[in-house]
Amino acid sequence: MADFKKTPRTKVRRLPERGHYDRGSIYRILDEGLICHIGFVVDGQPYVIPTGYVRVGDKIYIHGSPVSRMMNVLENGIELCLTVTLLDGLVLARSAYHHSMNYRSVMVFGHAVVVDPPEEREAALRSLVEHVIPGRWKDVRPPNEIEMKATRVLAISLREASAKIRVGPPQDDAADYGLPVWAGEIPLRLVAGAPRSDPQLSGGISVPRYAEAYTRKTKKT
Amino acid sequence: MADFKKTPRTKVRRLPERGHYDRGSIYRILDEGLICHIGFVVDGQPYVIPTGYVRVGDKIYIHGSPVSRMMNVLENGIELCLTVTLLDGLVLARSAYHHSMNYRSVMVFGHAVVVDPPEEREAALRSLVEHVIPGRWKDVRPPNEIEMKATRVLAISLREASAKIRVGPPQDDAADYGLPVWAGEIPLRLVAGAPRSDPQLSGGISVPRYAEAYTRKTKKT
Repeated sequence: MADFKKTPRTKVRRLPERGHYDRGSIYRILDEGLICHIGFVVDGQPYVIPTGYVRVGDKIYIHGSPVSRMMNVLENGIELCLTVTLLDGLVLARSAYHHSMNYRSVMVFGHAVVVDPPEEREAALRSLVEHVIPGRWKDVRPPNEIEMKATRVLAISLREASAKIRVGPPQDDAADYGLPVWAGEIPLRLVAGAPRSDPQLSGGISVPRYAEAYTRKTKKT
Repeated sequence: MADFKKTPRTKVRRLPERGHYDRGSIYRILDEGLICHIGFVVDGQPYVIPTGYVRVGDKIYIHGSPVSRMMNVLENGIELCLTVTLLDGLVLARSAYHHSMNYRSVMVFGHAVVVDPPEEREAALRSLVEHVIPGRWKDVRPPNEIEMKATRVLAISLREASAKIRVGPPQDDAADYGLPVWAGEIPLRLVAGAPRSDPQLSGGISVPRYAEAYTRKTKKT
């Protein structure tokens, strides 16, 4: 897989060592994340909306109601910026100035197109569910005709993207390493608790394995 | 504290029962979050950048290098949208269509102004650290003159904001409740692991309590 080209929009300028342009790094972040933040412009005003997504090959799919504001404007193909951020830890330095966070983020520039072919629409909806809860699709009632009509699926081709990654301990000024101040990292991760069955669940239905043992593992790219 | 007025930009239209406009709900979300996503427009192109922040009273502070792209454009007072999203759980319905997520998000519209008074700048930097790790500031070397010069602090007044919140079990179609499919919620939360000391940490410095027992508790508003 070819790397993404650095462009004036995606090039990480201030801390270039944090920039990554290879598809492996970028796809791993996209595949681990659950929500993205999509930025778009209406009458000069920026909007930033959180929403679910999935990457399939070199496309990102999102979905929503055809009457939602975001779907309505994005389906016109306007420019968007899609950002996924995974927070990995807090970085505690000896100086206030060098406090930081460890994170992995991806920024995608492009535009959305409406997905029309029924097979691609259905595959995208299946992927959207499977991205969040692998193994779930086979158990659920699939979308019926009315639901398919009430769902807009949009695709964003991955043509211009970059990742920004910070890992590791704090980087203090040389003179500060002797200070009697604890420094290091507090790792953070998104953890699943015990599944809560729907109060209206019929008797005799056990919690499936994918819900009992839910974890956010990176898929292979 | 007065509620925020619903505006055409902040009114939650499609699922109005998820919309909240009271400062208590909005401030609790802002106070629990660690990063926001800021959307802004340069030459018609939207950008969405993750960054740290803190709320103090009815202002949000962000900071960064004066040479960063985001700081450079935001300090001109252009329109921005600042979004904070907390993911609370995955909602597994009996139908694919009604799968959802439980979340709390806040969207703020406004613009940034440069913070000039040294006391407000210093207080903002202290708040930025204390928002992330309460108790930390007293232990660290405070910013020196060079670092203060290398830090831009911006304030965004909270004048136009709304929250969107989904809680609870799935809402399936009446006809689907009899299906033999497990339904419910997988709760998610951001959890801290054991602190990792900086490999260059001097001997005899123990891990402080605020790092050992780190948890993301909502502050009082």
